Amino acid sequence: MSRVISVYRRGHFNAAHRLYVKDWDFEKNEEVFGLCNNPYYHGHNYEIEVCLTGEIDPVTGMLINLDQLKKIIREEVEEYFDHKNLNEQVEEFKDLNPTVENICVISYERLRKKLDSKYQLRVRLYETARNSAEYGD
Amino acid sequence: MSRVISVYRRGHFNAAHRLYVKDWDFEKNEEVFGLCNNPYYHGHNYEIEVCLTGEIDPVTGMLINLDQLKKIIREEVEEYFDHKNLNEQVEEFKDLNPTVENICVISYERLRKKLDSKYQLRVRLYETARNSAEYGD
Amino acid sequence: MSRVISVYRRGHFNAAHRLYVKDWDFEKNEEVFGLCNNPYYHGHNYEIEVCLTGEIDPVTGMLINLDQLKKIIREEVEEYFDHKNLNEQVEEFKDLNPTVENICVISYERLRKKLDSKYQLRVRLYETARNSAEYGD
Amino acid sequence: MSRVISVYRRGHFNAAHRLYVKDWDFEKNEEVFGLCNNPYYHGHNYEIEVCLTGEIDPVTGMLINLDQLKKIIREEVEEYFDHKNLNEQVEEFKDLNPTVENICVISYERLRKKLDSKYQLRVRLYETARNSAEYGD
Amino acid sequence: MSRVISVYRRGHFNAAHRLYVKDWDFEKNEEVFGLCNNPYYHGHNYEIEVCLTGEIDPVTGMLINLDQLKKIIREEVEEYFDHKNLNEQVEEFKDLNPTVENICVISYERLRKKLDSKYQLRVRLYETARNSAEYGD
Amino acid sequence: MSRVISVYRRGHFNAAHRLYVKDWDFEKNEEVFGLCNNPYYHGHNYEIEVCLTGEIDPVTGMLINLDQLKKIIREEVEEYFDHKNLNEQVEEFKDLNPTVENICVISYERLRKKLDSKYQLRVRLYETARNSAEYGD
Repeated sequence: MSRVISVYRRGHFNAAHRLYVKDWDFEKNEEVFGLCNNPYYHGHNYEIEVCLTGEIDPVTGMLINLDQLKKIIREEVEEYFDHKNLNEQVEEFKDLNPTVENICVISYERLRKKLDSKYQLRVRLYETARNSAEYGD
Repeated sequence: MSRVISVYRRGHFNAAHRLYVKDWDFEKNEEVFGLCNNPYYHGHNYEIEVCLTGEIDPVTGMLINLDQLKKIIREEVEEYFDHKNLNEQVEEFKDLNPTVENICVISYERLRKKLDSKYQLRVRLYETARNSAEYGD
Repeated sequence: MSRVISVYRRGHFNAAHRLYVKDWDFEKNEEVFGLCNNPYYHGHNYEIEVCLTGEIDPVTGMLINLDQLKKIIREEVEEYFDHKNLNEQVEEFKDLNPTVENICVISYERLRKKLDSKYQLRVRLYETARNSAEYGD
Repeated sequence: MSRVISVYRRGHFNAAHRLYVKDWDFEKNEEVFGLCNNPYYHGHNYEIEVCLTGEIDPVTGMLINLDQLKKIIREEVEEYFDHKNLNEQVEEFKDLNPTVENICVISYERLRKKLDSKYQLRVRLYETARNSAEYGD
Repeated sequence: MSRVISVYRRGHFNAAHRLYVKDWDFEKNEEVFGLCNNPYYHGHNYEIEVCLTGEIDPVTGMLINLDQLKKIIREEVEEYFDHKNLNEQVEEFKDLNPTVENICVISYERLRKKLDSKYQLRVRLYETARNSAEYGD
Repeated sequence: MSRVISVYRRGHFNAAHRLYVKDWDFEKNEEVFGLCNNPYYHGHNYEIEVCLTGEIDPVTGMLINLDQLKKIIREEVEEYFDHKNLNEQVEEFKDLNPTVENICVISYERLRKKLDSKYQLRVRLYETARNSAEYGD
């Protein structure tokens, strides 16, 4: 009998961003995004929690080697976003607003490509201790 | 293609309560609720985590404006319960035991009325760092 | 109308372990488990979060008496694993690798036997603040 | 050569309180203590951190047996305050306002009597994650 | 007899910054500040903990009214730095590198001006959960 | 005018240990160290917080380059203790009981040798979220 289990691994990065819609004027952006629309940017310590679900390997007792998962998160999320200006320096946000929702989706998509399809994948992204988003299969 | 995402926002309040069933005598309440049955009340720092699920707006990149959600949580939960005696000063607990389960249900119901039905709503309520409850659609 | 709710309770224990497959030689274990294969053991502060789901009792306003749940977690998980060497001193790991996944499964099985089948049970086990697993019904 | 070291141990309790000065009228208390002056009480999850400073015993490598310290904190602070109404049910607050400052001082005094004078004692008391006080020798 | 006590209050803000010395060339800044020298900025969730020391008022049982302290922290630190680019939008950092050390010193100086000199003041500033600085009288 | 400031940096490691005095018989060790005397070892997730105090460099605005400090902590504490059995595999504990006090002292001594004497050094070591020790100049 196989056992379905979930395994979670956390990572973190620090970045700057600005929330606004390019097609809107400053007043409309100010109204919708408030302080987050600051054209000089502000920033956060982001925390990511990656959740994989699948069957435990009965020999090793592992779902996935956590060192491998750690390495994938480091390369695809931590090093890719860390100490960056998300709007100016991250390809995926050239035309996409870097809200906590969209950073979560992009993190998911970057990880999804590197992980075997036998794993179900969900990503939780914390922008602050009080705000977070979750996205996944 | 629309993307279904969840967004989480935390709030907090401090309150006093007593756990007991009005129709039971003191001994039975003592047996079931132990120290929580103290007639002089005790209290907690409550933390609430509100989770909305729905489709990201492709223009703003948001599920909901977090400032609006914050305001609804403040009015319906934080200011409504904060620094109150739940048994004596909160309408909903006049005839309902203010257990962590019931405070969670009431918080959900108060928030549900103010939030568009297009959002699925779940509420997690922490009474201490070790005890919590979750309720929702 | 009955209300389905989830209640969470946390516990903790400290233990030593070594990760390896008995049938493999040292080199293969080193390759797969890295530092965790140290034959002299290493250890962790484990945190467990137990989640029960079911219907609130309309009289008491509780899903389960949290004092009872706390006692079951203490006996079946905390006192059973605390300050132990999982490989050498815990029956269930004599032939099972004490990975975070397997400790989670064993904790679930020990708790499942003591809890009424009317409750759905899920167990989250944290090995560190960054690694955890979840298993359940 | 002897080594001077500090050892810290945490405990916690939940309690209800009201902040007010008995000799003042309601308006003045409202003005100074705001919501904390609620005559029906409110409450908190208090955390205490006890710090002892002294010389390490060169044989055991301990400043004090942490199990003994844990027992003293349990008896003098945790069990003494837990699930109590501080104003109504704790002797020391009959005529003393149970502010975070005064609960800290009283905790210190209760612990000081039970601890050898060779230890310097400091007590940190958290009323919430954002408010705390520290008092000691 | 008067009692000397310390009271702590936490606040938080989110901001963007870049670490570099204007008089140095890019290579030297890169060498000393590494990723923090990114000309497009990065950011953090900053936490501040303000510690006042002085004598408890024997009537109120308070060192200072925590609501007043909260208001001063909000105005002088939280609202002043929140959602700002520290290098570009904060007067004090026009010619001062916004390191965790300097943000701590500036926060101290802004608070010191608003607090009665009878209080000793110390400020702890967290840039991340792992990095912080402390400065004060 | 020079400014004296403190800077803090956290690190972590996981290890196994046993507390006992070699010259005592099992009964005496059991009496003093209780469960910690388990001859099969148990373990912890240790957290270390290193505090340096000194003068801010007026040019860089730093007390010390945090990347350098991070590297020293990694080499002298994290990599040195991580995934080890402290009693069996760490030189300094061959004849020294690895209590939280002594691990704190040894961490201090290892760091002290690598840090310029112009810095005052203090080390806080957490064995669990509830137990810690502090030692330093």
